[in-house]
Amino acid sequence: MATRFASQVYARRLERAAELTRDAGFDAIIVGTGPDFRYLTGSPAETFERLTALVIPAVGPARVVTARLELASLRESAITELGIEIADWVDGEDPYSLTLAGLGADAKLAVSDALPALHLIPLAQRTSAAPQLATAVLRELRMIKDEAELAALARAGAAIDRVHARMGEFLKPGRTEAQVAADIDAAIRAEGHDLAEFIIVGSGPNGADPHHEQSDRVIDAADIVVIDIGGPVQPGYNSDSTRTYCFGEPRADIAEAYAVLERAQAAAVAAVRPGVTAESIDAAARDILVDAGLGEHFIHRTGHGIGLSVHEEPYIVAGNRDVLREGMAFSVEPGVYFSGDWGARIEDIVVVTADGCRPLNTRPHSLVVLPG
Amino acid sequence: MATRFASQVYARRLERAAELTRDAGFDAIIVGTGPDFRYLTGSPAETFERLTALVIPAVGPARVVTARLELASLRESAITELGIEIADWVDGEDPYSLTLAGLGADAKLAVSDALPALHLIPLAQRTSAAPQLATAVLRELRMIKDEAELAALARAGAAIDRVHARMGEFLKPGRTEAQVAADIDAAIRAEGHDLAEFIIVGSGPNGADPHHEQSDRVIDAADIVVIDIGGPVQPGYNSDSTRTYCFGEPRADIAEAYAVLERAQAAAVAAVRPGVTAESIDAAARDILVDAGLGEHFIHRTGHGIGLSVHEEPYIVAGNRDVLREGMAFSVEPGVYFSGDWGARIEDIVVVTADGCRPLNTRPHSLVVLPG
Repeated sequence: MATRFASQVYARRLERAAELTRDAGFDAIIVGTGPDFRYLTGSPAETFERLTALVIPAVGPARVVTARLELASLRESAITELGIEIADWVDGEDPYSLTLAGLGADAKLAVSDALPALHLIPLAQRTSAAPQLATAVLRELRMIKDEAELAALARAGAAIDRVHARMGEFLKPGRTEAQVAADIDAAIRAEGHDLAEFIIVGSGPNGADPHHEQSDRVIDAADIVVIDIGGPVQPGYNSDSTRTYCFGEPRADIAEAYAVLERAQAAAVAAVRPGVTAESIDAAARDILVDAGLGEHFIHRTGHGIGLSVHEEPYIVAGNRDVLREGMAFSVEPGVYFSGDWGARIEDIVVVTADGCRPLNTRPHSLVVLPG
Repeated sequence: MATRFASQVYARRLERAAELTRDAGFDAIIVGTGPDFRYLTGSPAETFERLTALVIPAVGPARVVTARLELASLRESAITELGIEIADWVDGEDPYSLTLAGLGADAKLAVSDALPALHLIPLAQRTSAAPQLATAVLRELRMIKDEAELAALARAGAAIDRVHARMGEFLKPGRTEAQVAADIDAAIRAEGHDLAEFIIVGSGPNGADPHHEQSDRVIDAADIVVIDIGGPVQPGYNSDSTRTYCFGEPRADIAEAYAVLERAQAAAVAAVRPGVTAESIDAAARDILVDAGLGEHFIHRTGHGIGLSVHEEPYIVAGNRDVLREGMAFSVEPGVYFSGDWGARIEDIVVVTADGCRPLNTRPHSLVVLPG
């Protein structure tokens, strides 16, 4: 697959970003490297101490500021093809004045979420108004996926489903979590991802920590094992899917709690449609777990948007009244966690359609029983 | 190897950070996850949208703020063992007020370089004084490596030297840069790194781009090939070494320019000792290249500090009058770049000693001739 979409896609996005910048009352937004930069230019560049930034003024053409050293890395992006002006600088020069060139000293600026303090603070020191977050502008764009983006997310979803389908090859009692993770890593690449962005192998008590990664713990035949995996496929769109595994029949209390979790996940998916709030999806899952007395064991939000970032808007969390719209993509992933004992989670990515949603992961939701 | 040093190491660093915070006139520094956080707590946690931060007040004990979800990920760090207070929050709560608790509304704050705008701007909105960069405080600490850090850097250097020593197995005419890079990736891990942080295989004209990564270009027997590779070894310290390769005898003009480059690199290394400025090391390499008429072909700084970050202070660049001190570690890596034709670079990590420096990479500096 190509590393980016056709240049017109980025031209459209840049035009829309300028419109939204005007609507938000900003004079310009400044986008450092990272997913926002990739979204707007097609460049996967990642820089840290040397500033590379896209400047989108409310009025007038966008510009890119970059270290001369990084010029070549932008060549494959849409920047050249679209004829976007590039202002380059060399070590020892001041990239911040270059970034602010043409903007007044009292310009109202907004910056991308990922811009590090290292660059934000010098920019802020050269302007009289405190910079604000461009989140509203950029999330409005990135939250609604177009057809090509949805196709990339669907490819990612199918790829990670193929890895879960092969889990019996890797996940066996007597192996360590790290050994299992190494095999999953290879499978994630073999099934079409650029790399494994994260691999959680949470066996037994480690499954009770939602953000456990992997350890040298030897997996026991009596363990419940949470496997949460994903990574990017070209041009940069991510998979993210969790299934929970066991060896032989689970304990009765586990089977019972898991059945509630399965209902909670299904209820949240069933609640997804345009016009409802993000928090209502969280509530749909949570209410079922709370009613069954499992509320205190569901210790995180129900989901997160996904695209060029593994975690992005919209967040499916209490307090988020953002209204779902067609083309949004996010995870629905309730879990239950029993400290020191076991945990379980079921996670699919879903895309909001005109009248509901379409899951991009289609592996069975039941506790997957592998040979012990 | 353990993932961190003994807890007393972090206790000492935290105490020193508080001292330097006082000396700098800040009321507190706020350190987001990333290398500074790892340096101060031993935790390799990397969070983005959920704030995890270490707050070091000028007076009083340090505190950690983190999402409840991330608590377990801090368990292996020195935070628990040192009894550092952890204030946790759940999705929907405001982590910024929690972070600023106990600090006045007019507190003078400084933040770590890597703290993203997503967190810095909400923090800034809750304080009357604009936050500043804590770079000066944190670089003062991180720039001077202790014995254990130097030992880790030496292990990393020896590991990457072993990869360069095996380059003849991977780098052959007729293979693509990407194929060579895949083999190097496996070798970097096999030789003791956690992962390959970067792999530059710049063949022929691609070698003229210092930040080229790798491509599907098929390597030709007439190519000069720049190989710049590195990654972390436990507990998180990086290698970074470049050698330049060819197949059979190089063209006369290439051999001649390369000989100058070799002299430039050696001169810079010979100039390293306590008491001289960072920029004088850059000048030592640059003067030789300029005198030979190659100045315009050396398009980047001479080096960068290295440790938990691949690039950190001190930067070996014109304008940096920081004085070198014993225990600093940085790269010395001049290069020459002929656009559209070829490039070369020689890079070693050196450690400043009482009366000079000690290179951590010891492979020969000459153009490495491999079988064609």
